Amino acid sequence: MPSPNQTAPQPATRPRVVIVGAGFGGLAAARTLANAPVEVLLINRTNYHGFWPLLYQVATAGLEPESIAYPVRAILRRYRNANFLLAEVQGVDFTRRCVQTDVGEISYDYLILAAGSTTNFFGNNQIARYALGMKDLDEAQRLRNHVLLCCERAAVESDPTRRAALLTFAVVGGGPTGVELAGAFIELIRHVIRRDYPMLDTRQARVVLIEATNHILASFPESLQHAALQRLRQMGVEVRLQTQVADAHHDGLTFRDGSFLPAATVVWATGVRGAPLADALGVTLGRGARVVVTPHLTLPADERVFVVGDMAYLEGYRPGVAYPMVAPVAIQMGEQAARNIIAQLNHQPMLPFHYIDKGQMATIGRSAAVLDAFGIRLSGWLAWVGWLFVHLIALVGFRNRVLVLLNWAYSYFTYDRGVRLIFGVGAERQPAVVEYDEVNDH
Amino acid sequence: MPSPNQTAPQPATRPRVVIVGAGFGGLAAARTLANAPVEVLLINRTNYHGFWPLLYQVATAGLEPESIAYPVRAILRRYRNANFLLAEVQGVDFTRRCVQTDVGEISYDYLILAAGSTTNFFGNNQIARYALGMKDLDEAQRLRNHVLLCCERAAVESDPTRRAALLTFAVVGGGPTGVELAGAFIELIRHVIRRDYPMLDTRQARVVLIEATNHILASFPESLQHAALQRLRQMGVEVRLQTQVADAHHDGLTFRDGSFLPAATVVWATGVRGAPLADALGVTLGRGARVVVTPHLTLPADERVFVVGDMAYLEGYRPGVAYPMVAPVAIQMGEQAARNIIAQLNHQPMLPFHYIDKGQMATIGRSAAVLDAFGIRLSGWLAWVGWLFVHLIALVGFRNRVLVLLNWAYSYFTYDRGVRLIFGVGAERQPAVVEYDEVNDH
Repeated sequence: MPSPNQTAPQPATRPRVVIVGAGFGGLAAARTLANAPVEVLLINRTNYHGFWPLLYQVATAGLEPESIAYPVRAILRRYRNANFLLAEVQGVDFTRRCVQTDVGEISYDYLILAAGSTTNFFGNNQIARYALGMKDLDEAQRLRNHVLLCCERAAVESDPTRRAALLTFAVVGGGPTGVELAGAFIELIRHVIRRDYPMLDTRQARVVLIEATNHILASFPESLQHAALQRLRQMGVEVRLQTQVADAHHDGLTFRDGSFLPAATVVWATGVRGAPLADALGVTLGRGARVVVTPHLTLPADERVFVVGDMAYLEGYRPGVAYPMVAPVAIQMGEQAARNIIAQLNHQPMLPFHYIDKGQMATIGRSAAVLDAFGIRLSGWLAWVGWLFVHLIALVGFRNRVLVLLNWAYSYFTYDRGVRLIFGVGAERQPAVVEYDEVNDH
Repeated sequence: MPSPNQTAPQPATRPRVVIVGAGFGGLAAARTLANAPVEVLLINRTNYHGFWPLLYQVATAGLEPESIAYPVRAILRRYRNANFLLAEVQGVDFTRRCVQTDVGEISYDYLILAAGSTTNFFGNNQIARYALGMKDLDEAQRLRNHVLLCCERAAVESDPTRRAALLTFAVVGGGPTGVELAGAFIELIRHVIRRDYPMLDTRQARVVLIEATNHILASFPESLQHAALQRLRQMGVEVRLQTQVADAHHDGLTFRDGSFLPAATVVWATGVRGAPLADALGVTLGRGARVVVTPHLTLPADERVFVVGDMAYLEGYRPGVAYPMVAPVAIQMGEQAARNIIAQLNHQPMLPFHYIDKGQMATIGRSAAVLDAFGIRLSGWLAWVGWLFVHLIALVGFRNRVLVLLNWAYSYFTYDRGVRLIFGVGAERQPAVVEYDEVNDH
């Protein structure tokens, strides 16, 4: 890299900045470096940037995967100094300054690691096997297919116990992802499944949100936690607080108190850790397998290597608490890392990372969200409109914005979900709770 | 079936019509039976109806799979006497009048088999292994991923021979599918790949359309065949007539004359045969493994079993030539089979199938199509607008129509393809022509 067929002239003297990851952090860094006298190579294991805040809507048949993903090359077209490589980064040789990938080694002058995070099953293989994660397009599509298949199987299941399990959707984790998913599940059941399966008694269907502590949305003010909890329960979600999961099985969950919840669908929306690349670096990791960085966002031992976003462990607000794994932190870190590289090139001092907290929001369902920003605490319809607006603006690409807006308008007015199709990844997966030879009642 | 949890009251005396397949034929039959005194059970192996005439646009990153698929249950909501079962039909016991599926046996009073067709590799395992088919959403998505991966690999391939192979897209079969696909490929290269990969010399990229006979679009009038051929060549497609494929390999195609075409992408768009279910029936099959039916569309030996669409072999226009495997034939056959069931119930004579040929059309590319209908023969812009219009109207569902229209407008004005994303089915497939350890040139 660059290969001999590269024709765009690049002065050999330009330092090369390699960015690993095309998420919010990596793209923010590339954008900030667009006019700097460097050559940028962005490496990502997929050819798209995924807008993960809307992933739960893909998992619940509200949006097609294509509407929340945008080709990285289409983004980089705007930056004359940036190039893209589709590759999986496996490690870094800090001494020789090169990145090891599945398509070969890539040398760098400066490196920004922004590989994000992955689901943390805390070493529990049973949970990793039976619970569904929701971290990328494939996982979201698999979850969508699984949920729709469960409904199809419930429609032909004559045993009431099994039918109830097929119609029970358990979500573990009361953070924003868990709350948004639980709300979307209950609406899918109430508005879509009920009409699609007239022969099914959808009152049997349950959405159970399981949270280990005694509150959901831990990072939000208490008043909004209560508002969200009340709203979820009003919508019909069973919220179980102070409930610890012990294990997952093919047909449900066991809890620490020994009880069992029969459920064909278990989504693991708790526990996130730094990307596997963090483990391969051989550097000090903080809580959640995130790479410990200096306030300049560099490795303590190497000023040319920056780590940003979910992958970076930097204590912010107060000692012992790292910046949260959210998009605004990643974006601002990516920008700061890029500025610090420019500072190094200009022989100027690097600046420490300062997070400008613009607030947070989470949607619960139709006309319901919570918002905590600029000193304003809101719940209900206005917060929901704010949520829609912010997410639509943040989406990359005109086409995707129109697609998402169209889907939202469609769902809003028809109470329908357009994408309830079973195909692609995981379409062949059968809900384990049913044995099909018993279905026939002729 | 129906399972005990079915609450909708159905008089036990209503005869049950089982329809196998939710394609054009099966849906037309269900629609025609909507107000008849029968209970309809539609069985399909996917939960959606696929609008296959636009499948090539999914394969070339122009449309998302979701925009050409529509949930069967959403269609059947309108018909009070219709139910749906997600199952794969494996055989039929004509004596006991029941259908064997992977979820059990289903009894019927009348049966309409409309399971469609599958790719015919003519028993050549090499071709089945190395050539890509294009018959359903998964195959189209796999093809899309494969083509985009080839471009990514070409961008880092330093060997010019291999790079050329990665950028060569061979389409076997000069029927409408092959022609439409070849046209879409060349536009993808000219308008999208060129901008996405500024370091690639896209003049190296080739689209080769291979046809065994001496003309493309065999079913069209000669003047339109010539117009299409000329247009394709003008666009840059290499059309090879009278060229017989001998075999496929991991890195290209060999022809009967012994020559070899290096190509990382080979699409098999020639040869279609009746669905595998046809083989399992134990009845007489005609050419293309299609089930021989009477002019009433029933099995010769069983008046209660109808076969329609691609699966049915019925000689129409003239002796020895069966009705073509196209949507209008399937729709009209589905309607006729349904009407003949109603006739039987009313103790009236069944009527033979009469095909009303509304004409045919094929698109070649931007502003280019051929149309042969109502005595009019058109090529060029007007035919293209006609093609767009007819296909948009024929799509099921308001949401899908808007999505497709939006995508077409986007592509038309930006010359871009929004869905150039590598994910899902086949995303892991590596173009075989490259060995990645040789990519690194550091």
